[in-house]
Amino acid sequence: MKNDLKLQNLKGTTDYLPEEQSSRDFIIGTLKSVFVKYGFMPVETPILCPFELLSSKYAGGAEILKEVYKLKDQGERDLGLRYDLTVPFAKMIAANQNITLPFRRFEIGKVFRNGPVKKGRCREFTQCDVDVCGVNGRLVEAEFFQMIEECFSKIGLDIEIKWSNRKYLGGLIEEAGIEAEKISKVILTVDKLEKVGIEQVNKELYDLGISEESVNKFFSLAKKQPDEIKKIATSNLLIEGCNEVYELMEIVKNLNLKTCVFSPTLARGLEIYTGTVWEIFDKTKQISSSLGGGGRYDEIIGKFIDNGNSYPAVGMSFGLEPICVLLNQINKNKSLVDVSIFAFDKSFKVLEIAKQLREKNLNVVVDFKNNRLKKFLDNASSLKTPFVLIIGEDEIKENKVTIRDMKNSVQQTCSIEQAVEIIKKGN
Amino acid sequence: MKNDLKLQNLKGTTDYLPEEQSSRDFIIGTLKSVFVKYGFMPVETPILCPFELLSSKYAGGAEILKEVYKLKDQGERDLGLRYDLTVPFAKMIAANQNITLPFRRFEIGKVFRNGPVKKGRCREFTQCDVDVCGVNGRLVEAEFFQMIEECFSKIGLDIEIKWSNRKYLGGLIEEAGIEAEKISKVILTVDKLEKVGIEQVNKELYDLGISEESVNKFFSLAKKQPDEIKKIATSNLLIEGCNEVYELMEIVKNLNLKTCVFSPTLARGLEIYTGTVWEIFDKTKQISSSLGGGGRYDEIIGKFIDNGNSYPAVGMSFGLEPICVLLNQINKNKSLVDVSIFAFDKSFKVLEIAKQLREKNLNVVVDFKNNRLKKFLDNASSLKTPFVLIIGEDEIKENKVTIRDMKNSVQQTCSIEQAVEIIKKGN
Repeated sequence: MKNDLKLQNLKGTTDYLPEEQSSRDFIIGTLKSVFVKYGFMPVETPILCPFELLSSKYAGGAEILKEVYKLKDQGERDLGLRYDLTVPFAKMIAANQNITLPFRRFEIGKVFRNGPVKKGRCREFTQCDVDVCGVNGRLVEAEFFQMIEECFSKIGLDIEIKWSNRKYLGGLIEEAGIEAEKISKVILTVDKLEKVGIEQVNKELYDLGISEESVNKFFSLAKKQPDEIKKIATSNLLIEGCNEVYELMEIVKNLNLKTCVFSPTLARGLEIYTGTVWEIFDKTKQISSSLGGGGRYDEIIGKFIDNGNSYPAVGMSFGLEPICVLLNQINKNKSLVDVSIFAFDKSFKVLEIAKQLREKNLNVVVDFKNNRLKKFLDNASSLKTPFVLIIGEDEIKENKVTIRDMKNSVQQTCSIEQAVEIIKKGN
Repeated sequence: MKNDLKLQNLKGTTDYLPEEQSSRDFIIGTLKSVFVKYGFMPVETPILCPFELLSSKYAGGAEILKEVYKLKDQGERDLGLRYDLTVPFAKMIAANQNITLPFRRFEIGKVFRNGPVKKGRCREFTQCDVDVCGVNGRLVEAEFFQMIEECFSKIGLDIEIKWSNRKYLGGLIEEAGIEAEKISKVILTVDKLEKVGIEQVNKELYDLGISEESVNKFFSLAKKQPDEIKKIATSNLLIEGCNEVYELMEIVKNLNLKTCVFSPTLARGLEIYTGTVWEIFDKTKQISSSLGGGGRYDEIIGKFIDNGNSYPAVGMSFGLEPICVLLNQINKNKSLVDVSIFAFDKSFKVLEIAKQLREKNLNVVVDFKNNRLKKFLDNASSLKTPFVLIIGEDEIKENKVTIRDMKNSVQQTCSIEQAVEIIKKGN
């Protein structure tokens, strides 16, 4: 049985059983409830796409194209499974001329990558993206920080938002005397600072042909505050970056966004970003991987739609998997069921009692199966159900229930109302 | 631009824009909140499956196999996209030996069919399944009826649950003198009664080689109540069916489940069902298609797992699409945003005000873009935003806001608390 091939999941795909999926549902539900308060609205785009959409020049690029799952339909059309939610976002804006900009949307859905499976890298996974297209300026970026703080406060995790600015970082690199064409590569190298350490970063920078003098100058500049940098900046890019950083810093300070930390060497991997970028980390440092991140990407959608208009955009992803891992370390062993009901007489009356408990918003499982109380109790205990109700002839006659606290193995007979109170207190 | 191929969705796939997706999200959220109260827990299974899983003998059968999207991964393994959520449910039980039965789960996710596209039939669509495996008897079936009533009462739709029993219907056919090997086909024909009318059904029955006498006898039996039938039944199948129907009828009556109507000729298309079946309809008859349905299927999971154990199961699907169509006919033109804020001075202060409104659970959009009030108001009006706040120098100085009721074009200056009250009253 266990070796039956048909019963194995594909490598890089997962069955989420109730305990884990409940956490995921809680996180997704919490995020959604915050997103709509910030005026972001849900959309859903197809997983099956014309291959042409996924392979268009300004979609994800050659690297990602290798990882697209390809297939054909009965009409022999070339299809692919979407690999992110950004291409569908750009397509939605392009295809629906009546969408009013700014367009604020979130989408939570499966994406697929036909690539190597590593820890934390699946072939099928859920992305959770929030973006707005059609807004310039720093205020909207600060609003994202506000929203992130509210999301994680509602989820119950302590976080830190590290932020930087691509123009600022690029400007520092330019100011350090590094050639313009090397800026992108230097940015991606410097971004790894926290992960691989200064020695490894220095080595990679030297490998890129950057002189020791430039490397030292860069790191000494990166240590200075933006207002100091502004006084000495000569690169236009750096001056522009300084202004953006300074403006956002002021807003962050005025809004008292305490989780935000300016971290100039942060670049957030991808090449698409054009201004402010950020990444969210677990403040308690139980896990080191990012819990999400985003930034401003003013070029991508315009290049994709290619109609001469400008589509400035800011957006971010929440990392469902790492958030879930962290949350499960905290909320271990919480039962999904508030109370289980066992009736000796399997009649409709047990459903009436269940209904009354559900009207009080309790999660109730009715036992329809076991004829022996002991077996039922063993079962409830192994499922870590906190309370059970036992209904016998006497209980039904007197309109009462016997409630058993499974943790303390104490039981009492009381009214249904009293039982509800006990369960709500005990949970 | 409009003819750009990359911007077209594939036939049979859909972009859900915010207005429609909000309805879908509301329905899904409501269903989930009820499911957990009934002890059903969320799970998630992969979309990408080994082709072998989807094509195994007791999966969906030959008809559906033609419609499986096939693909290969980089290791040239044969994969398919899942076409339903029942095969993954059976697989989850088989593959996780530590799952305790009864296992109650729900799963809401995308499924794929590479078949012809018709009205109401897509190539990619969301299924919403709730099932329990490991329970016999009528009580659990009545609990599904309870749950359905609560789901639709929370969604705000008036429904009717038509129910029947496969053994009863099969028994009536047997009792009418029709050969055992024709029972399945006759069931599927009779099931179409409401859709195509009695003449068409009679014609199809004659085409199956059923005599006029048997057809007449069947319909005269189908009109009788189960307690009358019980007195005259000779077929063992019918006697068993009578007992099950009678038992469930009593529970339905005792629980005062008012939406339930016994409809003996209902069969619910698929061949998998073994006992009670039901289908949900719009009581206001605005749409005729079913809003969901389900029943008992005691054989399928056991045959799939094939380890000699028995896996009695009851389950159902909710039809997200028809429920959404119906709901949108009722809730037309409801704005997703409670209030939009325009500040002449684009400073952090507007984000502070927005925060205060969001703390009162309002959905707030901040305008970061428009410099002209008129353009902002036109925009808000075209988006049907019910209220806007206008923040000028005076408002900030006096810690007040100007609130405009967009429907009546009246405005007043007041405190933020008063504005919150006005918005909450007006929505």
